[in-house]
Amino acid sequence: YNIVLLPGDGVGPEVTRAARDVLAVIGDFYGHDFQFSEHLIGGAAIDETGEPLPEATRAACVASDAVLLGAVGGPKWDGGKRRPEEGLLAIRKAMGLFANLRPLQVSPVLAHRSPLKKEIVEGVDLIVFRELTGGVYFGEKTRTADRATDLCEYTVPEIERVTRAAFQTARQRRGKVTSVDKANVMETSRLWREVVTRIHAEEFPEIELEHALVDSMAMHLIRKPREYDVILTENMFGDILSDEISVLGGSIGLLPSASLGAGGPGLFEPIHGSAPDIAGQDLANPVGTILSAALLLRHSLKLEDEADSIEAAVAAVLAAGAMTADLGGALGTRAATEAVIDAIR
Amino acid sequence: YNIVLLPGDGVGPEVTRAARDVLAVIGDFYGHDFQFSEHLIGGAAIDETGEPLPEATRAACVASDAVLLGAVGGPKWDGGKRRPEEGLLAIRKAMGLFANLRPLQVSPVLAHRSPLKKEIVEGVDLIVFRELTGGVYFGEKTRTADRATDLCEYTVPEIERVTRAAFQTARQRRGKVTSVDKANVMETSRLWREVVTRIHAEEFPEIELEHALVDSMAMHLIRKPREYDVILTENMFGDILSDEISVLGGSIGLLPSASLGAGGPGLFEPIHGSAPDIAGQDLANPVGTILSAALLLRHSLKLEDEADSIEAAVAAVLAAGAMTADLGGALGTRAATEAVIDAIR
Ligand SMILES: CC(C)[C@H](C(=O)O)[C@@H](O)C(=O)O
Ligand SMILES: CC(C)[C@H](C(=O)O)[C@@H](O)C(=O)O
Repeated sequence: YNIVLLPGDGVGPEVTRAARDVLAVIGDFYGHDFQFSEHLIGGAAIDETGEPLPEATRAACVASDAVLLGAVGGPKWDGGKRRPEEGLLAIRKAMGLFANLRPLQVSPVLAHRSPLKKEIVEGVDLIVFRELTGGVYFGEKTRTADRATDLCEYTVPEIERVTRAAFQTARQRRGKVTSVDKANVMETSRLWREVVTRIHAEEFPEIELEHALVDSMAMHLIRKPREYDVILTENMFGDILSDEISVLGGSIGLLPSASLGAGGPGLFEPIHGSAPDIAGQDLANPVGTILSAALLLRHSLKLEDEADSIEAAVAAVLAAGAMTADLGGALGTRAATEAVIDAIR
Repeated sequence: YNIVLLPGDGVGPEVTRAARDVLAVIGDFYGHDFQFSEHLIGGAAIDETGEPLPEATRAACVASDAVLLGAVGGPKWDGGKRRPEEGLLAIRKAMGLFANLRPLQVSPVLAHRSPLKKEIVEGVDLIVFRELTGGVYFGEKTRTADRATDLCEYTVPEIERVTRAAFQTARQRRGKVTSVDKANVMETSRLWREVVTRIHAEEFPEIELEHALVDSMAMHLIRKPREYDVILTENMFGDILSDEISVLGGSIGLLPSASLGAGGPGLFEPIHGSAPDIAGQDLANPVGTILSAALLLRHSLKLEDEADSIEAAVAAVLAAGAMTADLGGALGTRAATEAVIDAIR
């Protein structure tokens, strides 16, 4: 298996190294040959090549079996000609990654660390399906001295494919999809609602479907997060809502994500950003990236047992109280990674 | 004083009546002549006239000293040719209401009802300035069978005026403004950030200014809401974030809003929606609308003492435990209104 590593910026390199080490141990243990190759993206790529997504990186990702990314961005590149984030957006587009999956399970061990009351977050088990290649992210932008515009754009096929992915996942879960839009204001949202409603009726009538407005959803996710199973939404709303709920489980450092296309390689990355303030200090929580590696095994390499084994090891380590500082623990990035590796062994 | 009432849909009429009764008592007590006239908006207006904002309503609002609105919308008008919400958007535009203010103070009496831990929400005292006449709400929309678009659009003067309003308010508060955008993706956000930065440097250098991305802000508002004083943002982000924080204080039924333009009449309405499920049952919390009436007195009629008197009465009533069902109390809409009126007397 050919796995591309994109360490990126800030804490990206240290958490990517952590996940690579875990993958290497899994490879040894289960007898798989994981070949890792490292490539530049984001600010690190701008510094070396002037481009946030060098052609070599793009080509390697597209030709790989899966991509594991750390994080991109940081104040160092503010005001520069190219922005690190462009690299992330460009690789999503180049790989055709249209569905960003963010699973959230609130661990009973950590529920008390949530800013929300324990009785509200305990037992939360949901997954966000965020559309990743459309919306305001990729529409035309204009700028004059006096005026700026961004175009939010969706086509029927773009909505259909992510909708199908969400309903398919709901089938394997509790059978409920909540589709989020702003249909009382946006034309793209009205199209979104129409398409989701039609795909539901034609292909997934046994799944429960509800529609919610993004503003009320921002409320409901705090008041009653347990009610949700699969949340389906467009690019920008998905960005905002998935970050909002990322705090429910106690630390954003725990959360993985998977970005998937139509059969090609997927891209896997922690939810957290580059956190330049703690970069290089062995302080970052590696769990989000390690769990992203588990998603990589499951979704791109179809190695289900291997993925389960990483997830079980992480759960055991957290249950034993071996945690990084963001969770009130005393372990550094390396020590937390070693704890996971020991648990796998 | 000529006050236009727009009861609208769902619980709108009963909460508008509650606030009008409170205003009438204030008028008697302080010797002001409040003239009320009722007009149609939203679904109620569609039912009677076919238009969500009849011309008579528009003309009355523009000629008034202030407008008090209940709520618009409901499933009854789903799929119809005209949407009730169009009426709300059109009156905002017609009155030139560019700044929507949503103050949030978490009452010590109600902090325990928040989904967040008491130690996180206690003492929260912030105000959101949402830009109200630009962004994706009013940009051009297109639709074909296969494709939909919404244009998000901002001009420099649009950003300047709401920015000045936010900084002026920060001066009278704790002196901090947090401007929220998505400058790593949107051109309108980059313009937003430039203009806010310039107005700050040129006109309000003594105020503390920070910029935040909308996705991280959705997180921070749950993790550390006490850190914020004035939050300044564009139309759609303001819609989402202000609804998100509306749950912090225990019930959205408590929260007022003011929409202000350049010197003309303002429009005042509770944050909550039309809640058709409880409409006409004397169950709605009238406090959000009553506090909106207080904002009307303060901002449009410049009757500061009168506004204070309503706010003090509401605080006393809540402290005494006289609450509607959404707050765990036993009072109906009418009884809760009477309690506030008794406290004023
Ligand atoms: C870095 C940024 C462009 C990106 C996004 O908005 O998609 C990030 O917030 C994310 O969610 O992956
Ligand atoms: C009803 C709707 C159009 C409106 C908006 O999005 O502005 C509402 O959510 C609000 O916040 O006042």
